[in-house]
Amino acid sequence: MNLYLSIKKILFKTPARTIFTIYFMFALVAGFILWLPISQKDGVSISYIDALFISISALASAGLSPIPLYDTFNLFGGIVTLLIIQIGGLGIVLLVASYWVISGKKIGLRERSIIAAEQNQFTVKGIIRLISNALIAILVIQIIYLVVMTFYLYVKQPFDLTFGGAFFHAAFLAASSFANAGFEMFPTLSSFVVFQEKGMYFPQYASMVLIFFGGVGFWPLAEITLYFKSIFKKKRYKISYISKLLMFLHLLILVITIMIYTGLEFNNTLRFMSMPEAITDVLFMSTSVRSAGFTNTSNLAWSESTKLFMSVLMFIGAAPNSSGGGVRMTTIILLFSTLLSYGRHKKQVKVFKKAIKEAAVKRALIVFSMGILLVFVSTFLVSIAEPSKKIMDVAFEVSSAFGTVGLTLNFTSTISNFTKVILMINMFVGRIGILTLLEVLDNKKTANVVTYAEIDMMVG
Amino acid sequence: MNLYLSIKKILFKTPARTIFTIYFMFALVAGFILWLPISQKDGVSISYIDALFISISALASAGLSPIPLYDTFNLFGGIVTLLIIQIGGLGIVLLVASYWVISGKKIGLRERSIIAAEQNQFTVKGIIRLISNALIAILVIQIIYLVVMTFYLYVKQPFDLTFGGAFFHAAFLAASSFANAGFEMFPTLSSFVVFQEKGMYFPQYASMVLIFFGGVGFWPLAEITLYFKSIFKKKRYKISYISKLLMFLHLLILVITIMIYTGLEFNNTLRFMSMPEAITDVLFMSTSVRSAGFTNTSNLAWSESTKLFMSVLMFIGAAPNSSGGGVRMTTIILLFSTLLSYGRHKKQVKVFKKAIKEAAVKRALIVFSMGILLVFVSTFLVSIAEPSKKIMDVAFEVSSAFGTVGLTLNFTSTISNFTKVILMINMFVGRIGILTLLEVLDNKKTANVVTYAEIDMMVG
Ligand SMILES: [K+]
Ligand SMILES: [K+]
Repeated sequence: MNLYLSIKKILFKTPARTIFTIYFMFALVAGFILWLPISQKDGVSISYIDALFISISALASAGLSPIPLYDTFNLFGGIVTLLIIQIGGLGIVLLVASYWVISGKKIGLRERSIIAAEQNQFTVKGIIRLISNALIAILVIQIIYLVVMTFYLYVKQPFDLTFGGAFFHAAFLAASSFANAGFEMFPTLSSFVVFQEKGMYFPQYASMVLIFFGGVGFWPLAEITLYFKSIFKKKRYKISYISKLLMFLHLLILVITIMIYTGLEFNNTLRFMSMPEAITDVLFMSTSVRSAGFTNTSNLAWSESTKLFMSVLMFIGAAPNSSGGGVRMTTIILLFSTLLSYGRHKKQVKVFKKAIKEAAVKRALIVFSMGILLVFVSTFLVSIAEPSKKIMDVAFEVSSAFGTVGLTLNFTSTISNFTKVILMINMFVGRIGILTLLEVLDNKKTANVVTYAEIDMMVG
Repeated sequence: MNLYLSIKKILFKTPARTIFTIYFMFALVAGFILWLPISQKDGVSISYIDALFISISALASAGLSPIPLYDTFNLFGGIVTLLIIQIGGLGIVLLVASYWVISGKKIGLRERSIIAAEQNQFTVKGIIRLISNALIAILVIQIIYLVVMTFYLYVKQPFDLTFGGAFFHAAFLAASSFANAGFEMFPTLSSFVVFQEKGMYFPQYASMVLIFFGGVGFWPLAEITLYFKSIFKKKRYKISYISKLLMFLHLLILVITIMIYTGLEFNNTLRFMSMPEAITDVLFMSTSVRSAGFTNTSNLAWSESTKLFMSVLMFIGAAPNSSGGGVRMTTIILLFSTLLSYGRHKKQVKVFKKAIKEAAVKRALIVFSMGILLVFVSTFLVSIAEPSKKIMDVAFEVSSAFGTVGLTLNFTSTISNFTKVILMINMFVGRIGILTLLEVLDNKKTANVVTYAEIDMMVG
């Protein structure tokens, strides 16, 4: 009993540790359920490490998988996977919090600080308002998609489905698109390839909308809800700087990606496509690469430069507080602003006319550096374990895991258990975030205030 | 006249700009001399871009070259190259300063701040003492090497040289080893390969000593001189924390490199060597990869993992104030300390029991991030320009340029002019340092003191 208490104390001492522990335990249990025979089709048997891999991948909205889901899981296993994706997409803590909101349970300061830590907010103020309004937006968007796609799949019949089957697959795509998970349960590994081949472009554009809103994060989603509410009430609502910034950055990176991707593949993969096919491919892949990881054509034919470019985008990832991974795009914009302002001896770093706190700048630099270290060390270790693979393909797969994107170069289906573990670590860290990881080491609740005389040091 | 004055004002406004301008102009002029027919053998003609490439490569102590030096340059051209290497190794500004010291010219505050900026010191105090004592160490070490190697080459005759020829080549190797330049003027591209093949190991070990002291930086060199002087005077001299740290870090990274390199190549290149050959290879390559860039066996047979590992080492580079490039090893130790202390909510970053100033920590993070960006963008651009090359080989070559190392995978001899320009930029930035580059943008001498209200921002 004392042992139980002291373990509990170690595992839940700080908000960061609580988040780490909850995610980790959830992944273990969900992996166990997927591993049980009741989740699998007759005659199929998978190892626990593969089940755990899929569990972490679904929880992290990554979408990488060492085995094809459709051939492995029965309906029960499919529903379990779908639930893990939804829970991972919303964030476990967010889900617990919404339960509190719905059940009317009073949320104490400790609970608030855990939610604040997971949602990476600076204050706990307004978190509850954020959650409930974001949930409304999530629900509305997903239900519209679900209804439309169910009928689309049933009428157009790209996969010969019953109405129930169409509903299940539409639900799966809704969860997977919004959570930027990239998982699919179609017989073929990528349903968007089938759509593309049959000249069906609607599902791509519909999913792009969900991917965008899923990747932009809870804060803008909540504010969009508040904005529409205010129109309904004929009041004025001013969307905050941070929400505008996130949406603007998301679109800006998307536009840059579209231009560079087009340039890189113009004389390669794109030249074999018709005009609508090529446009859909560029828009869909540019939207998908930041976090979702769906694919509508084969990425194996990409040039080496495109693979490198896509790896960088996967490393950057989506917005903070979204289901996307990576170092997050705010980290990158802060990094660029810092580098430019450093040279010019500015006292403060500014992003679009707003001065940014020194502590935030430092956090961004730390997150970027730690992300680079993690991806490099992982790539190095995997390259030793998989000597037959090219480094670029290894780096691509590791970036895909860290960015919880899930794009793959036919890689994850042929790897050793050691490589699986490395990829799992990257997906897990990509999901909980680097700052949470670094804070897990901490066993104090407050900063160490003892200071020592400081020295300077020469660098670069 | 007014135009001349305003150009001069722009180019020399700040210490960083002055350094940038001096290096850049020197490279242009030295490249011009190498391009002239008087520098070249009969019947040889090279383009100005190749001459400029060699000039920048020699100035930056990089050692990359698109053409074989021995087949191109006559004795005059060889001596010019040797002089560029010596000047680059010492640092142009340091050389000007030593002229001032020798000539007894009074050094004003402006001159001091330029020297301080180039030598990357925090104060101008003690710079003069540093310079004169470092010069003594440099002179003593190089003269011993020159004498010993002249006789060694003349007696052992690995290349059939006259005594004058042996002297010239020993001088070339002395300059090239100490400056960590990696250039050679032997008929074969790598003389150490010849030594190794003939079972001659002495030159490798002799050069290792020079490479080590050249890579450890001026500060420890000066202090070692002061230490020996004090023994001579029977006084006590306490070597400073920073010098000890630099020597310790240099050795520490060397030991780690030896272990990992041995592990990576044990079943690959090393298995085909005799025991003394393998030991010499491991020690020599581990010493060489951080900055010197000499090679004693073929690196083409390295595994992909080894190439990645070596690229990382080249990116890290040697000590600040040394002729090595890269982000410098102090940046890396500060980075690791910062990452570890962040998670633990420590107020200060500590390196080996000393607390480090917040500004130094920030500089380290900026240098690391900017270095990563430079190498990634360069690799991306080169991969577009050279579609037939593998990304790993491109990244290796770019890291080699940025780290001013000069190891190559038979790459630089077959590249386009665009790629040459990219590699030149990397060598140049590697030499002058990232902080100097960032400060070149600045046109104010003091920091901007106007401050704005700050906001926080979520990252990773
Ligand atoms: K994904
Ligand atoms: K070199």
